Amino acid sequence: MTQTPSPARRRMLKAVCTIPLAALLAYCPATFATPPDQGARPVISIAIHGGAGVISRASMTPESEAAYRADLGRALDAGYAVLEGGGSSLDAVDAAVRILEDSPMFNAGRGAVFNSEGINELDAAVMDGKTHKAGAVAGVRHVQNPVGLARLVMEKSPHVLLSGQGAEDFALENGVPLVPRSWFWTEKRWKQLEAAKRGDRLSAADIGYYGTVGAVALDREGNLAAATSTGGMTNKRWGRIGDSPLIGAGTYADNGSCAVSATGSGEYFIRTVAAHEISALMRLGGRGVREAAHEVVHGRLKELGGDGGVIVVDGKGGIAMEFNSEGMFRGARSSTGLREIAIY
Amino acid sequence: MTQTPSPARRRMLKAVCTIPLAALLAYCPATFATPPDQGARPVISIAIHGGAGVISRASMTPESEAAYRADLGRALDAGYAVLEGGGSSLDAVDAAVRILEDSPMFNAGRGAVFNSEGINELDAAVMDGKTHKAGAVAGVRHVQNPVGLARLVMEKSPHVLLSGQGAEDFALENGVPLVPRSWFWTEKRWKQLEAAKRGDRLSAADIGYYGTVGAVALDREGNLAAATSTGGMTNKRWGRIGDSPLIGAGTYADNGSCAVSATGSGEYFIRTVAAHEISALMRLGGRGVREAAHEVVHGRLKELGGDGGVIVVDGKGGIAMEFNSEGMFRGARSSTGLREIAIY
Repeated sequence: MTQTPSPARRRMLKAVCTIPLAALLAYCPATFATPPDQGARPVISIAIHGGAGVISRASMTPESEAAYRADLGRALDAGYAVLEGGGSSLDAVDAAVRILEDSPMFNAGRGAVFNSEGINELDAAVMDGKTHKAGAVAGVRHVQNPVGLARLVMEKSPHVLLSGQGAEDFALENGVPLVPRSWFWTEKRWKQLEAAKRGDRLSAADIGYYGTVGAVALDREGNLAAATSTGGMTNKRWGRIGDSPLIGAGTYADNGSCAVSATGSGEYFIRTVAAHEISALMRLGGRGVREAAHEVVHGRLKELGGDGGVIVVDGKGGIAMEFNSEGMFRGARSSTGLREIAIY
Repeated sequence: MTQTPSPARRRMLKAVCTIPLAALLAYCPATFATPPDQGARPVISIAIHGGAGVISRASMTPESEAAYRADLGRALDAGYAVLEGGGSSLDAVDAAVRILEDSPMFNAGRGAVFNSEGINELDAAVMDGKTHKAGAVAGVRHVQNPVGLARLVMEKSPHVLLSGQGAEDFALENGVPLVPRSWFWTEKRWKQLEAAKRGDRLSAADIGYYGTVGAVALDREGNLAAATSTGGMTNKRWGRIGDSPLIGAGTYADNGSCAVSATGSGEYFIRTVAAHEISALMRLGGRGVREAAHEVVHGRLKELGGDGGVIVVDGKGGIAMEFNSEGMFRGARSSTGLREIAIY
């Protein structure tokens, strides 16, 4: 008996036949969950990242790997718990990113890299896929959780992007206490700055050169959200702002397509408007979430010379985690039963 | 005798039949040049803008209108002269925007609006459609031509976006002299700040609330470029950064689609990633330059509540100048014989 393919199966076959790229996808390291139909209970999904770059197995001890996995797991489960309790995707990405900011392991909040003056300068953004509202901060130095300040900018100001001391004035006017710079100090990052100033090539052990943290989520209401937070580049100068706080570059969310958080060599994500390009490929180009992420990360980003990766969740809970670097700290969990934490 | 339509005519007919939006376009104020085939001599085109917003005929005297038109004409012709001499689109947009920055009439460079502290804080960006390289500065206070500094960031730094004092350090390290703040001071803008601080509603005479200047161009080599420069919003606080220096929001260029410079209520251009969305609609959605500009300016931008406009040039020299506000200072010139300057 010949089986008639289901409509979903037919669409998939058509995609495989018409898009040569699809043949390549089987070989790429990425998670892609196409959740089964769950009837009345909508799928919920979350993905997180803790940066991408030169992360070789050789540079990791079993202890350090376990510590990274533990903090990624805490952030992932905290975000998932929000979704499972019926909370919004905005609250979920906020909760996950705060944990990664407070962890000294990642280049965001506490544990951020130092700029050339030995100061931690922090950037963050958040976007709501339902309303297309967004908030972001760049170059703040005394805010424990930049992602929370970005959310306040979105909710309490008419603006999207606030910078420097002005952003800290806004924080104080809205009841956000400032913390001393010592809150962000870690020995590992200080040594990285000293090495960078000596002109040492950053060794494989210097995980986090492209460090960033981020989260994307789909809630039970079908709303998508994205958040990203970073300390930027070690030894950065001249008030450099990377892609993380720039809507469309490192952070983007749109209920009609996907939510994206990026990590990597930020300038290339700005030039390719990477997060928005993934959304455009889905909305206008008919690509699926994984195809779109793959096309940007392994296509135009790589062609320009950009390293890094993205996490993406679509409106059905499908997740893509694509990177063209050696590794990307990442995790994904959804109501389909998926729970994964990975580095390489 | 029945005439067979030309291929171009057939494409146009098909577009009109399949895209209902096209029917609307006839009613919209915009310039759209479809240049005829010029044989061996490639088309060159440039468009400029000097801001959009509440610009009513009643608020203009014949003298002030003539002054605006004169400076727009000087900028347009300076940019066009670069293209005509075989120069690059980058040089053309740079030349045009410098003239608008130096003119006290427009909200960029000299004549920029004041922030809440009574200081001119300037943002600018430039992008090269051939290489997808880009440079931008935000919040500089002592740089006569921010567009020139943005170009230096593109050409002499590994970064895209530099901000505040750091950007001025970069300027000095690259031989750009700083100017005193008095260079930017104009009585008109100071009175606007005083009115804004008193809580007066900005009257129709306060042209420039959404002021920005910008240029887009196509050169003989077929390369596109875009540049935008602004003083942002009168009485702005908290280190607010608008869309002008953000690649994909207020400024974008890609040889495969178009070059865009935007002006208006910046936050909405950030949230819609407006400039990059126009490119995506052309590349991925099959839209022409005017359809794409119309769809963003009168569609998603307006739906969110955003006011303003865009100038766009495509790879064939076609120009769109779309706005959903009362007026937009603008000009367009191309080797097809077009030369137009308009306000309403």
